[in-house]
Amino acid sequence: MHRLDRSLIAGLPAFQGLDDSSLDAILQSASSLRVTKDQAIFDQDSDAHSFFVLLDGRVQVVKSTPDGQQVVVRYIVPGELLGIAQALGRTTYPASAIAVVDCVVLAWPGKLWPEFATAYPSFGMNTYRTVGSRLSDIQAQVVEMATEQVEQRVAHCLLRLIKQSGKQTNDGITIDFPISRQDIAEMTGTTLHTVSRLLTGWEEKGLVKSGRQQVTVVEPSRLSVLAEGTARDNI
Amino acid sequence: MHRLDRSLIAGLPAFQGLDDSSLDAILQSASSLRVTKDQAIFDQDSDAHSFFVLLDGRVQVVKSTPDGQQVVVRYIVPGELLGIAQALGRTTYPASAIAVVDCVVLAWPGKLWPEFATAYPSFGMNTYRTVGSRLSDIQAQVVEMATEQVEQRVAHCLLRLIKQSGKQTNDGITIDFPISRQDIAEMTGTTLHTVSRLLTGWEEKGLVKSGRQQVTVVEPSRLSVLAEGTARDNI
Repeated sequence: MHRLDRSLIAGLPAFQGLDDSSLDAILQSASSLRVTKDQAIFDQDSDAHSFFVLLDGRVQVVKSTPDGQQVVVRYIVPGELLGIAQALGRTTYPASAIAVVDCVVLAWPGKLWPEFATAYPSFGMNTYRTVGSRLSDIQAQVVEMATEQVEQRVAHCLLRLIKQSGKQTNDGITIDFPISRQDIAEMTGTTLHTVSRLLTGWEEKGLVKSGRQQVTVVEPSRLSVLAEGTARDNI
Repeated sequence: MHRLDRSLIAGLPAFQGLDDSSLDAILQSASSLRVTKDQAIFDQDSDAHSFFVLLDGRVQVVKSTPDGQQVVVRYIVPGELLGIAQALGRTTYPASAIAVVDCVVLAWPGKLWPEFATAYPSFGMNTYRTVGSRLSDIQAQVVEMATEQVEQRVAHCLLRLIKQSGKQTNDGITIDFPISRQDIAEMTGTTLHTVSRLLTGWEEKGLVKSGRQQVTVVEPSRLSVLAEGTARDNI
């Protein structure tokens, strides 16, 4: 086993404020692993044995209902923590994490979390800042689902995805991982049929381009108007 | 100013695992305050100057959208923490907290949070357990909104409220604080009109009784069947 270099994690938000010797100590108990596309990094309700940092790739966090329906809760981009159940006093994972492309992750035994948080307070604080922003994101999602028309919700969802994971291409800004219309439907609480209808309409207007598992926003500013505009009309 | 007795907080989840002298030390920097019905304990986006424990009453956490629409995110019952923005690395409150009945709260200066978490690790851990269960609740809410019909969502909402804040009465289990049909609409992402239609229908079937700002679930088990049943039919 060769050593992991501290440059792997030094720049990441979770490890900000840690000195080199702390980073080295934290890395000593990490394992790096490759997860191939469509494999689970962890499964909902299973024992929270480890926590992770995504180094490369994209991860989909999926929550399943008791009757087997699935909802995409969020996407994780490189540098983000995942599976930090221990930090929230949980012994199981609340959702599943699926690699949407080939991924590289660092894994630590879950039981080390409290030790790390005590030994490196800024690591603990950085983690809770992540938790806070996820809580805030998901509250915003509830508010969107409660107050917005489906067209606005889908527009907001695409705008969030290009902000988080957009890649400038010739056509506009492309979501840089495979995403299906079904995924978008699950994220916005609507049906595949509705997402298809919306994307087709937007494509005709020149707002987006979409293909198999790929979405490009051609004109983000016009999509923003759509995301906000109807809400104002509703007042 | 008279002293606050440690019995005020000794039994609360946030303070579990703390010895008497720790409880006394924590109480020394607390102020107790009374908040009258409909007053804000704190306002969304304002400076997170304090964190709180609700000692008595009921608090509604409300998130407002930029265009002025409101969504009830959750209700807080006695014993729960609120306004713990500092614990999540935030400097402002992500939502407003409104007293739905006369309330008594304990308040601490927000800047004490990191000190407390360091000095009393079980207090920190208890707080994060609360954060974890709120994150889990709100994820469940997103999943419900994404996958359930409106009838199921409203049924689930009422069942959650009687579980959290139910009082056994002659008629059944009454939600023990004033709650309007509009509040229920905001919690479930539907309209006042739909909530009224559902409650009227359920009342005719003898499932619930409702009056001005009051809802009683007469037959929780039949409401549960309704909350789950339709979902199964959808598979």
